[in-house]
Amino acid sequence: MKPSIPKGTRDFSPTEVANRTYIINTIKTAFETFGFQPIETPSFENSETLMGKYGDEGDRLIFKILNSGDYLNKLEKKDYFFTSLLRINSIIRASYENFINYSKSYLKDNLELFNDEDKFLSDKNINSIFNTLYFDEYFIDKQTCLRRFYTIYIQSLYNKNKDLSNSLIGLLVRESIEDYFKNNLNKASSEISEKALRYDLTVPFARYVVQHQNEITFPFKRYQVQPVWRADRPQKGRFREFYQCDADVVGSQSLWQEVEFIQLYDTVFTKLGLSETTIKINNRKILSGIAEVIGAQDKLIDFTVALDKLDKIGQQKVQEEMLSKGITEEAIEKVQPLFSFNGTNSENLDALALMLAKSEEGTKGVEELRFVINTVTILGLQSANLEVDVTLARGLNYYTGAIFEVAAPKGVKMGSIGGGGRYDDLTGIFGMKDVSGVGISFGLDRIYLVLEELGLFKSVDLPKPKVLFVNFGENEALYSMKAISKLRAKGIKSELFPDAAKMKKQMNYANKREIEFVVIVGSQEIENEVYTLKNMISGEQTKCSLSELINELH
Amino acid sequence: MKPSIPKGTRDFSPTEVANRTYIINTIKTAFETFGFQPIETPSFENSETLMGKYGDEGDRLIFKILNSGDYLNKLEKKDYFFTSLLRINSIIRASYENFINYSKSYLKDNLELFNDEDKFLSDKNINSIFNTLYFDEYFIDKQTCLRRFYTIYIQSLYNKNKDLSNSLIGLLVRESIEDYFKNNLNKASSEISEKALRYDLTVPFARYVVQHQNEITFPFKRYQVQPVWRADRPQKGRFREFYQCDADVVGSQSLWQEVEFIQLYDTVFTKLGLSETTIKINNRKILSGIAEVIGAQDKLIDFTVALDKLDKIGQQKVQEEMLSKGITEEAIEKVQPLFSFNGTNSENLDALALMLAKSEEGTKGVEELRFVINTVTILGLQSANLEVDVTLARGLNYYTGAIFEVAAPKGVKMGSIGGGGRYDDLTGIFGMKDVSGVGISFGLDRIYLVLEELGLFKSVDLPKPKVLFVNFGENEALYSMKAISKLRAKGIKSELFPDAAKMKKQMNYANKREIEFVVIVGSQEIENEVYTLKNMISGEQTKCSLSELINELH
Repeated sequence: MKPSIPKGTRDFSPTEVANRTYIINTIKTAFETFGFQPIETPSFENSETLMGKYGDEGDRLIFKILNSGDYLNKLEKKDYFFTSLLRINSIIRASYENFINYSKSYLKDNLELFNDEDKFLSDKNINSIFNTLYFDEYFIDKQTCLRRFYTIYIQSLYNKNKDLSNSLIGLLVRESIEDYFKNNLNKASSEISEKALRYDLTVPFARYVVQHQNEITFPFKRYQVQPVWRADRPQKGRFREFYQCDADVVGSQSLWQEVEFIQLYDTVFTKLGLSETTIKINNRKILSGIAEVIGAQDKLIDFTVALDKLDKIGQQKVQEEMLSKGITEEAIEKVQPLFSFNGTNSENLDALALMLAKSEEGTKGVEELRFVINTVTILGLQSANLEVDVTLARGLNYYTGAIFEVAAPKGVKMGSIGGGGRYDDLTGIFGMKDVSGVGISFGLDRIYLVLEELGLFKSVDLPKPKVLFVNFGENEALYSMKAISKLRAKGIKSELFPDAAKMKKQMNYANKREIEFVVIVGSQEIENEVYTLKNMISGEQTKCSLSELINELH
Repeated sequence: MKPSIPKGTRDFSPTEVANRTYIINTIKTAFETFGFQPIETPSFENSETLMGKYGDEGDRLIFKILNSGDYLNKLEKKDYFFTSLLRINSIIRASYENFINYSKSYLKDNLELFNDEDKFLSDKNINSIFNTLYFDEYFIDKQTCLRRFYTIYIQSLYNKNKDLSNSLIGLLVRESIEDYFKNNLNKASSEISEKALRYDLTVPFARYVVQHQNEITFPFKRYQVQPVWRADRPQKGRFREFYQCDADVVGSQSLWQEVEFIQLYDTVFTKLGLSETTIKINNRKILSGIAEVIGAQDKLIDFTVALDKLDKIGQQKVQEEMLSKGITEEAIEKVQPLFSFNGTNSENLDALALMLAKSEEGTKGVEELRFVINTVTILGLQSANLEVDVTLARGLNYYTGAIFEVAAPKGVKMGSIGGGGRYDDLTGIFGMKDVSGVGISFGLDRIYLVLEELGLFKSVDLPKPKVLFVNFGENEALYSMKAISKLRAKGIKSELFPDAAKMKKQMNYANKREIEFVVIVGSQEIENEVYTLKNMISGEQTKCSLSELINELH
């Protein structure tokens, strides 16, 4: 067996783990500095917790876990197969007379079905039809199947062919089972699977908040860094198992949270050395206002998708696309300011305010956005840019206020490396109404790719020992181990080559693992109570006492 | 819907996450100090990677993941149901004559079956039997079912009851389908599920080593801290999702590894404040030697289980148990030294050497054990005890050399908190022969319970802010945020209460979360450019400048 892993999953090498840990720890530290607390939830949830929360497509992409034990047997014993078997029995138990009567009445009601089936009634076709009907054409559609069935049936009555009549019972049995199974697929699914792997961190978090509401002090600021699983088609940068890094606040509608989340993005990306990211911000209420102006909520996505292309294809083409999607010329006229939306944030907000003046909700959205942007501007950002982007429509179905998205530094080809927003009724699905939430997420895998592309992992401490002690035999190893214990107690990563081996082999190992220092212990060193320390980069070699050795490596 | 999580899984609160992270980080730091490198593997593996590696019981406890998409439909279309339907057809298509001939020959061959069934042949019973046969007694065993079937069949022939004969076909169909499903359960299983959740970290590690052998420098010292899943019956301290913390070395047979693993246990448990743990050590070769002496490998477990009770029930009762298990008096005589096995490690090793002198393998085991114990003794342990324990037989099936187990400090009722051993052919299952491995594991959940019981989490830094700024309105909040940004830049966990609210509410929040400091900002503070810092423990309140505030909280 050639070992492999399921598609869309990954092994992580020591270097990759170190780099990922570096990103995760940077994010976690920032989360905690901002007052967020960690929670963890189980990898799998009860299916009913997850199903129906992500739309039909989401339901399909959730990994379901088979019930443990002899699940199929249990299923059979329960009622699934049993019921179908009873149905077969009841059909078989019906006498020929009943069967023929039923068929006759069906024929009477459906005689026109067979008008164009004369060719089937010719004697010479009967046998070949009969032979293929049961074996090769099982998957013909039901209508065709029924027509053929009754065609043959007529023929069999005509020929008084008793064997054929017997066979027809078989077909009826088959139809019956097939119908039953088709109708019961979903039921069977839920009987053999009651658990499913986490699809995101937001729904489990909502479940957590409701389940533990009596232990939680609100407003509750939580962060969560755990893997999620999606049965998506794997592709570059998209995996079936990947980490999400989320921070959310529930139980407060304060816009200060939005301000803090922007600062949090700025803090993390600055710490990672990723300057000049662009934090894009929009507000669902502004989108609603635009929808009012263009005259239809259902055209909103078409509108934002077209508007998003302004930089690439120009105003003329964008407007053509809008018109082709059924947005009227009059509506486009009303949102004219959006086509010259390249002033400062403040100028853009003024234009929006004017344009949406007649929409109560749109005006509210502009006010919210203005507060957040003004406050962030006064407080200042370390390295990120903040930019109003009215084409930002992610999570349109659940976000109700702010919408965030972070773009990687210009020049790096990568989709968004973070996103989030406010949702007014996070926990409603679990029966706890009117709890507002707002949160953001960091895209670990994409951030990894960006840092790699920009060469920003240089400073990461790789998981390798700082010093290797060569091993020339039992005495030498024991002498070395005394030093190693002391070094380790000081937190210095130290390793003894496990086998007594030739110098060359051990040096090769040190070189391959890029270990900085090697300590050589031979009989001479033991006699003189010293250690020979070799710097593998400079090649320099010195003899030193144990305390000197510790100082040198500390 | 009342939110809940699957049995055997857990939510972790912020405090629990902090405590668990503290343990995990202590273990990881020690792993790295000892030269181990982290890897991570996917949560699910291909089923064939896992199945058959843990015995039948293990296979049953592996969580299988349903194939994504319309898996049941695919199954049906493929051949599973289809084949069974073809079989039904072929049965139905058999004419009555064939059926009767088959039944007659069966009757001839099995006539004696019906000798004691006279009561079924009485006329008055026929109808009631018939009524119950198909509906209520579906789950009677097959033998009974067949007997009844033919009993009724005889009766039906006798009565020339045509309806009854028809019904018998139904029973035959049912039997046929039932047989088919029973025989194809496993096949169906593998068709609807091709992936399974990781059951431990060792098999995925073996798979990793073989798959990445060309990228790895051997000897390869890896550590891995990830969750595993088992469909075990949940009970106190046993969960369906739990973390394993493993360190292993592959590619070296050096006994220095065993020495280092004992030091590693000692280092971690000492760091956690868990002194006086007992690291028990045995060697598979010594167990083989004992098996030779008592005369049978298959009595070894009975022997060690009985011997393990020596402290509790005394020599007399232990020997009685051994005799009852078929271990001879002569054999017990030969292992007499094991009944007075309470000297020093060195004395016990001498006794073992003498007792196993005639067993080559046993002698090798004693030599290995002696090297490890002597070396560890010379180098010294910080807080753990090291103890030879010949009753230690965990992982008997795969360990080939050293066997480790760590017992919690005396007085704490808890099973082993760690274990491991050497296995000579770790990667053989994946086609890479003769790679020796040795490793240990830390039982995170049990260590957690022990630390909790002994009150050893006191020093853990809980994930809460050090300081809360109260919020009296927009101006005050903005003034506060300027300080908060500075504090966060210094790594001080700081939080603004998100909503402008009454003092009492905000103080309640600070108290509930046990936040140490609160900063109060009113119009007076803004005017005087100061902050009022309140120590929530002492109640002391001081006015200070921003730089004083930072110094105070740093």
